[in-house]
Amino acid sequence: MPNNSKRGNEIGASPIRSLMPYANQAKAEGKHVFHLNIGQPDIETPPAALESIRSLGNDIVAYGPSAGLPSLRKKVANYYDKFDANLQLEDVFVTTGASEAILLALVACCDIGDEVIIPEPFYANYLGFSHMSSVTIRPLSTHFENGFALPSPSEFEALINSRTKAIFLCNPGNPTGQLYQKEELKELMYLVKKHDLFLIVDEVYREFCYDMAFTSVLTFESMKEHVVVIDSISKVFSSCGARIGYLITKNRKLQEAVEKYAQLRLCPPYFGQKLAEACYENAAEYIEKARQEYIRRREVLYDALQKIEGLECYFPQAAFYNICRLPVPDAEEFCKWMLSDFEHNGNTVMLAPANGFYSNKEIGKNQVRMAYILNCEDLQSAVECLGVALATYPKRMTLEFMNLN
Amino acid sequence: MPNNSKRGNEIGASPIRSLMPYANQAKAEGKHVFHLNIGQPDIETPPAALESIRSLGNDIVAYGPSAGLPSLRKKVANYYDKFDANLQLEDVFVTTGASEAILLALVACCDIGDEVIIPEPFYANYLGFSHMSSVTIRPLSTHFENGFALPSPSEFEALINSRTKAIFLCNPGNPTGQLYQKEELKELMYLVKKHDLFLIVDEVYREFCYDMAFTSVLTFESMKEHVVVIDSISKVFSSCGARIGYLITKNRKLQEAVEKYAQLRLCPPYFGQKLAEACYENAAEYIEKARQEYIRRREVLYDALQKIEGLECYFPQAAFYNICRLPVPDAEEFCKWMLSDFEHNGNTVMLAPANGFYSNKEIGKNQVRMAYILNCEDLQSAVECLGVALATYPKRMTLEFMNLN
Repeated sequence: MPNNSKRGNEIGASPIRSLMPYANQAKAEGKHVFHLNIGQPDIETPPAALESIRSLGNDIVAYGPSAGLPSLRKKVANYYDKFDANLQLEDVFVTTGASEAILLALVACCDIGDEVIIPEPFYANYLGFSHMSSVTIRPLSTHFENGFALPSPSEFEALINSRTKAIFLCNPGNPTGQLYQKEELKELMYLVKKHDLFLIVDEVYREFCYDMAFTSVLTFESMKEHVVVIDSISKVFSSCGARIGYLITKNRKLQEAVEKYAQLRLCPPYFGQKLAEACYENAAEYIEKARQEYIRRREVLYDALQKIEGLECYFPQAAFYNICRLPVPDAEEFCKWMLSDFEHNGNTVMLAPANGFYSNKEIGKNQVRMAYILNCEDLQSAVECLGVALATYPKRMTLEFMNLN
Repeated sequence: MPNNSKRGNEIGASPIRSLMPYANQAKAEGKHVFHLNIGQPDIETPPAALESIRSLGNDIVAYGPSAGLPSLRKKVANYYDKFDANLQLEDVFVTTGASEAILLALVACCDIGDEVIIPEPFYANYLGFSHMSSVTIRPLSTHFENGFALPSPSEFEALINSRTKAIFLCNPGNPTGQLYQKEELKELMYLVKKHDLFLIVDEVYREFCYDMAFTSVLTFESMKEHVVVIDSISKVFSSCGARIGYLITKNRKLQEAVEKYAQLRLCPPYFGQKLAEACYENAAEYIEKARQEYIRRREVLYDALQKIEGLECYFPQAAFYNICRLPVPDAEEFCKWMLSDFEHNGNTVMLAPANGFYSNKEIGKNQVRMAYILNCEDLQSAVECLGVALATYPKRMTLEFMNLN
């Protein structure tokens, strides 16, 4: 029997999805599973956008342009006006989800063995895509204790060497829910320019800022040769399954490379693009309604979590995630236990163990990521269920032990 | 300004799409362009499948399973019964087009620098995806003179070394229209087993065989650890824009690697999967009707091409492509000229220069690939237009000169 590639064996399973077999087993046993593990919003996809799919009159579902339908690219460029991004149609590449945009950004910017600096914890699939493209991630630790604030430029600079090609940020942050401010970004820009790096920023959560304004790196016109933005309709328009994302850059030379990679896979999905086009109609009202809902959920989640003894969390600023520290020695083991050996009134909870969001798995060992993507009532029930689970978990650590550590 | 990656600069533009700017310019000037360059069928997508998209009742377009919707995987497994493939649902991974299946097969089977033997000319994007995944293609020449017949096992064996991980075939062949027979495949199997290789076969054109029966490599049960099949609904169901393909393997260990790569990009497009599911209803009738139409077109194209002096072609056995030799020194230049400087009654033709299908560009220099994806009337007009173009092309080679070469 021929052997898999080494890279195929080595690549890690998604921490967001790797416990799915346990969840499926739990469901097969009749338990209800509250999914706080995945960023799948329960908000309705814009009804008018779905209606537009239902009224499509085409008779051949044909290949489209590699960079996406011009009508969609134009709408995306216009949408960015509110972020002072000053985009042309040509700057927007439609991709098959943000996932593909991440991969294309990595291969277009970086060669094998090149390095990308990413504050950690980070969205786990950055690790997978860098592995797939043989790019090395240099993680820069951020810390639970200060809400995962952006490290100083000097901390970034300490990691820069001759192989460094880019700094990669997620703003607002998944899995941390942090929001980088304009002044912080400006300081980083100076560094990016000094070392002639790309600055790749995943901004898919930009519409979910609750206390402070969002700054897109596309606003910095002087940085236009350096900036690559990753975007998606998945979260903003609750359309995860449509698989429509964007890679945005004003760097003409980089556009040429991205176009060639885009040609390889011929075109992005047609139906998703038509859905996306319709999403941009009356988007402001839809988005604000969703934002208000997430503000309520953030409160509900935070208040409920505060009541669990031994659990530590902070009040996230943006996106719909936060990281909690649990009073358990191994959060992944606890997450499996909740699915396999626990139930509370027929319910249990699925969380994403946070070690998958760290390159140093030890740091995140007692942490989990929660996505507040259920309605307030379900969130309450889920956290209540989690509280009971933690109270009854055989390996729960005592407060005395935790304080010693 | 930061530099693109070297790989991003080096990767070639698609030979199928690289002349698009010239075609767009021609259209802007009011010319009608007959597109024989791209495998975009003009056959209607199954109307019932489109209707199923129009009647979708969902309210959240959510993430699905990474390997695809189980309902679709089951239908695909059943569809393969007619090829005696004996598939389980678990053997079928739904991908974002055959494109993604090619990339996943390469990274799951091969490490950086590993080699894959592919008979050339081959589908140009194999080169792009192997470049993207840093896998080396070892091309094995096949020849216009014998209709691009499969080379003998000993010719394959001569290219096998310690880095060889797979033999990669396209059957039926794009761009050649050849069809490998069961006995030929069996002989190759022996070699694959002897050297413990993967055998990756792109079978997306399997339904378009006109004279002889098709043999899927999935039928060889003793080869189940070696075989990986690439498939797609794009051509069979004229649904190129839906971006639904499949990676099929019975190798459990390889499935594990593919699953992890699939998890990285979360899931295939939802709407495309729903369309695909509906395509498998009453598929036999739909497919046979399309096949009959391609049989007519093949005749029409071949007869029309025979009338062009100096043009050489053969009668293709399968798929909807063939390769022609043109009486010009450089077919790519001629193709550009047709778009830029030629018209016949307001019409012109776009062809795919065949050099892009060869790793050795010189071999294909006077060849083009034609896709007979237009209706018979348009095909007639397109070939007539091509004949006029060849007759008036300033750099046309004389028959005397050609015979000398």
